[in-house]
Amino acid sequence: MSGLLSTLQVELGERSYPIYIGQGLLNDAELLVRHIKSRQVLVVSNETVAPHYMEKVLRSLPGLQVEQVILPDGEKYKNLDVLNTIFDQLLRKRFDRGCTLVALGGGVVGDMTGFAAACYQRGVDFIQIPTTLLSQVDSSVGGKTGVNHPLGKNMIGAFYQPNAVIIDIDTLNTLPARELSAGLAEVIKHGIIQDAGYFSWLEAHIQELRNLDPEALAYAIEGSCRIKSRVVSADEKEAGQRALLNFGHTFGHAIETGMGYGIWLHGEAVGAGMCMATRLSRMMGWLDGEDEGRIVAVVDAAGLPVSPPRELSLACFRELMAVDKKVMAGQLRLVLLEGIGKALITDEFTSDILNRTLASYTA
Amino acid sequence: MSGLLSTLQVELGERSYPIYIGQGLLNDAELLVRHIKSRQVLVVSNETVAPHYMEKVLRSLPGLQVEQVILPDGEKYKNLDVLNTIFDQLLRKRFDRGCTLVALGGGVVGDMTGFAAACYQRGVDFIQIPTTLLSQVDSSVGGKTGVNHPLGKNMIGAFYQPNAVIIDIDTLNTLPARELSAGLAEVIKHGIIQDAGYFSWLEAHIQELRNLDPEALAYAIEGSCRIKSRVVSADEKEAGQRALLNFGHTFGHAIETGMGYGIWLHGEAVGAGMCMATRLSRMMGWLDGEDEGRIVAVVDAAGLPVSPPRELSLACFRELMAVDKKVMAGQLRLVLLEGIGKALITDEFTSDILNRTLASYTA
Repeated sequence: MSGLLSTLQVELGERSYPIYIGQGLLNDAELLVRHIKSRQVLVVSNETVAPHYMEKVLRSLPGLQVEQVILPDGEKYKNLDVLNTIFDQLLRKRFDRGCTLVALGGGVVGDMTGFAAACYQRGVDFIQIPTTLLSQVDSSVGGKTGVNHPLGKNMIGAFYQPNAVIIDIDTLNTLPARELSAGLAEVIKHGIIQDAGYFSWLEAHIQELRNLDPEALAYAIEGSCRIKSRVVSADEKEAGQRALLNFGHTFGHAIETGMGYGIWLHGEAVGAGMCMATRLSRMMGWLDGEDEGRIVAVVDAAGLPVSPPRELSLACFRELMAVDKKVMAGQLRLVLLEGIGKALITDEFTSDILNRTLASYTA
Repeated sequence: MSGLLSTLQVELGERSYPIYIGQGLLNDAELLVRHIKSRQVLVVSNETVAPHYMEKVLRSLPGLQVEQVILPDGEKYKNLDVLNTIFDQLLRKRFDRGCTLVALGGGVVGDMTGFAAACYQRGVDFIQIPTTLLSQVDSSVGGKTGVNHPLGKNMIGAFYQPNAVIIDIDTLNTLPARELSAGLAEVIKHGIIQDAGYFSWLEAHIQELRNLDPEALAYAIEGSCRIKSRVVSADEKEAGQRALLNFGHTFGHAIETGMGYGIWLHGEAVGAGMCMATRLSRMMGWLDGEDEGRIVAVVDAAGLPVSPPRELSLACFRELMAVDKKVMAGQLRLVLLEGIGKALITDEFTSDILNRTLASYTA
């Protein structure tokens, strides 16, 4: 099996863009070049991904001024200082405002390259080639870009849409199993919040996904991108419905920040975070024990943690959740469940129930 | 004379906002509070402006969580590192995404505060209180925000509109005469590129403006804001007509970069840059000597330089202009004149004529 398997259009008016999903797409020079209007292209990657795929991408861009930036690998390098190395290269190589930035890598590379594209000369073209399952199903859709600050994750950034996203599922062959599982966290999340049928399919096919079965992967990536792009199209700037995508993330961010960036993978923190939000929903009486069991089972089968790290105390959790940007006007709002496929944003939970949920893990 | 003299609406669809112009507006608490939807306000100023006006602004915001950041004064501090001190304060004080940033100061404070507002949690509210003539007529209208990079001015930034702009012309009483002149450069520019009648009025009233005559100032600020907001409303993202506002700026940026930021004021560089663009227009045969004389005379009467610094060689100028972001796809485009009030964007000049124009100053 090779070639383009699916094309999705993310509908955002004049900022709409296509997502291409297939096998061997990095060998398809025409697909990339089609979306480059400039003669100057900067490909941003990292030291892990570049040795595998940089050559293929460069081969697709003959006759253009193509430059590279190779970032160090890891969430801890997602900061303003490292971002500035992208600007350094753009200016040293005299890139004008008609240039194109290409992100070749996972979520960190995509977030930083997208933010650099949003800011360089107040906005230049941007193409995403996500090479991890997480970035393929999550950060390549939705236009969220940015960097971390020592006091909070993704606190500095922009909403900025790419011109195109090219997903070559062959890149998953070089992805460590742990990172594949982390990507499955977001795939599972999309089913939980929006689509009970998709969730059931995932329950039945989770092992095929972990075994990199191409047909299963293409189906899951397309399904996830479709759910996410539907949510994002309806609510680009995260005023309302889009916040549903934060299911498990308020707990998850607390885990990531509390442990220090990069100790737990984002998807691992989200896996545990989803289980915590699920338990809180059940303790509210909104969700039955069977649904909780199904969710915990599929998170577990995906190879993800189903509870937070023992090191984080209840007090620490509450402290970390207060900084989270879901705190609006002093009131913590969470995404909770009324059923599988039925999520809602709510502040209708008592501090006591939240405490008891946290205590059930941290005791 | 006291109170609100004029209100202008900048029309940008859902991002439209008012500009208030008057005397004593910093004493009008209600005017500021009307545009603050949050309970958290960060006022950003600098060490020169804050001692004069910070107290007045703080008095307008009782009952809210109000924090301050006082930046060092000067263009050389308009960089990513100093920008980060704003993020530090926002996060230390746990500002949420519903917060408001207020810029109290000149163009540097406005550009940095606006960019911080654009990036903090991917965008929060932003109010401008410009305290220099330059920022009142220029950087408070148009939504350009950002910081400099060692290799280029304003290379990192965003288009981001304020919720309101409050111009209290009393703040000009503490402005050094040299900075007042620098502001007049942009006022004159607006007449030159768009409005011959306004230019004639300026020729007749330039001394009253330098003497801080309130009625003349209010008229000039309103006229300039009106011209600029008309241009910006038609072309928010600078695809076409908005570039007319760069008249004198390609030469001016070369002067600023070549001399090192902050040696010449931006407005001084633009003053000389406008004279250079005018001379190039005349050498093209598009403008007669009388119009050139009028332009040079009013720039001179405003207390501005009418030629570039001797230190910059012709080779240096060409090198610096090549980095400028008006270089599109390798071709330098400039804003030139066909008459007073009639500017156009063009690449229809030969390298030879550009060289001869530069040589006429640098020989």
